[in-house]
Amino acid sequence: MNLVILYQEELAGSGMAVIRDPRRVLHIQNILRAMPGEQIKVGLLNGRIGEGEIISSTPEMMELQVEFSSEPPPVLPVTLILALPRPKTYKKVLQAATAMGVKKFIVIESWKVDKSYWNSPVLSEEETREQFILGLEQGMDTALPEISFKRRFKPFVEDELPEIIKGRLPLLAHPGAVSPCPRNVAGPVVLCVGPEGGFTGYEVALLEKHGMQPVSIGARILRTEFAVCALLGKIF
Amino acid sequence: MNLVILYQEELAGSGMAVIRDPRRVLHIQNILRAMPGEQIKVGLLNGRIGEGEIISSTPEMMELQVEFSSEPPPVLPVTLILALPRPKTYKKVLQAATAMGVKKFIVIESWKVDKSYWNSPVLSEEETREQFILGLEQGMDTALPEISFKRRFKPFVEDELPEIIKGRLPLLAHPGAVSPCPRNVAGPVVLCVGPEGGFTGYEVALLEKHGMQPVSIGARILRTEFAVCALLGKIF
Repeated sequence: MNLVILYQEELAGSGMAVIRDPRRVLHIQNILRAMPGEQIKVGLLNGRIGEGEIISSTPEMMELQVEFSSEPPPVLPVTLILALPRPKTYKKVLQAATAMGVKKFIVIESWKVDKSYWNSPVLSEEETREQFILGLEQGMDTALPEISFKRRFKPFVEDELPEIIKGRLPLLAHPGAVSPCPRNVAGPVVLCVGPEGGFTGYEVALLEKHGMQPVSIGARILRTEFAVCALLGKIF
Repeated sequence: MNLVILYQEELAGSGMAVIRDPRRVLHIQNILRAMPGEQIKVGLLNGRIGEGEIISSTPEMMELQVEFSSEPPPVLPVTLILALPRPKTYKKVLQAATAMGVKKFIVIESWKVDKSYWNSPVLSEEETREQFILGLEQGMDTALPEISFKRRFKPFVEDELPEIIKGRLPLLAHPGAVSPCPRNVAGPVVLCVGPEGGFTGYEVALLEKHGMQPVSIGARILRTEFAVCALLGKIF
């Protein structure tokens, strides 16, 4: 937790904030080992970042005097389209990509996605939001990403994708692609990453037909969470 | 497991190989679901990669007819110097960096490394090798990386580092650095990544004095395993 995220409802008047949530209270006390009188980095969810001086600290609550003095880091101008990964990977990818500054996620069906993953509790709004918060705390950011789920591949690609990629560089990360992944892209990007085992030939063809450009980062196959980091590192 | 690694001692004559290790046997049977008559991708440790046709398959052993027809993917020309991470992270970084093609690791002491990590069983030769193998299986590679451990920071930096960086671009990933991390580097690189919490000012100064160039990938702090992937994606 490089930044402690505070919520609007935790702000009292005159620059005071009160945290009662045990996860953050215990983390500040036991991991950051911050004592009354010391400063920690704080950020207001969807707002600015700054410093908080610990005024009082008990196992149940913590009072801080906060000042939000600067803007959060710049966002990555990317829409990340992910074939639904297995639940553990879903959490890792969301956290890592959020820490890197991704603000827009679209999770889609694909043939090699085990259908049972759609019933996983990790997709709930609450658990998804938790991964976002963990990613923001890690990346020292405050702006909560958005996510949407598209459970039907073909209608999504045919009816929605063309609008999404308008004015953006539409990259399909695909191990078999001939073109290398571009670097240091200045404008907005749509990056689509397939499931373990890859998109099927049909899926790649349909994505290509609707504007996505297959690109490769080499012969090596990486786990989804590492592939996303390597791709984002390369593209931006 | 995108590639099943075979060992020299598993090769019988006439292109036959016999696997008795339960981890690979069960993975091929239960995860890859490959049956006799089917082909799987195989590679000989530190050798070539190719195809194996399953001849027989029992819970105890598997016979394959193998042919090694191509070279493993190109290596990344990088020496990765890592401040010893916490044990779980050590495993993740080794796997991810190996999957990306890193062949040379140096693990060093630094001030913010919890000294107890040096006693972790994950640093044993056996467990370290296991992470390398998992990374190779993921990245479809066969060449086992090398690793060395330097438990004293100052003698390493003063006496060994200058020789290691000779003829290589010596990059120190440091969140506070002014220069951005270079992209698309053609020649060999030494990349040094600090612990969670970063190197101390003294450590950064000593590394700089002995030739390392501090570079940044932005204000965001990433977990070590994701930072390494983003850096390698950017540099190569």
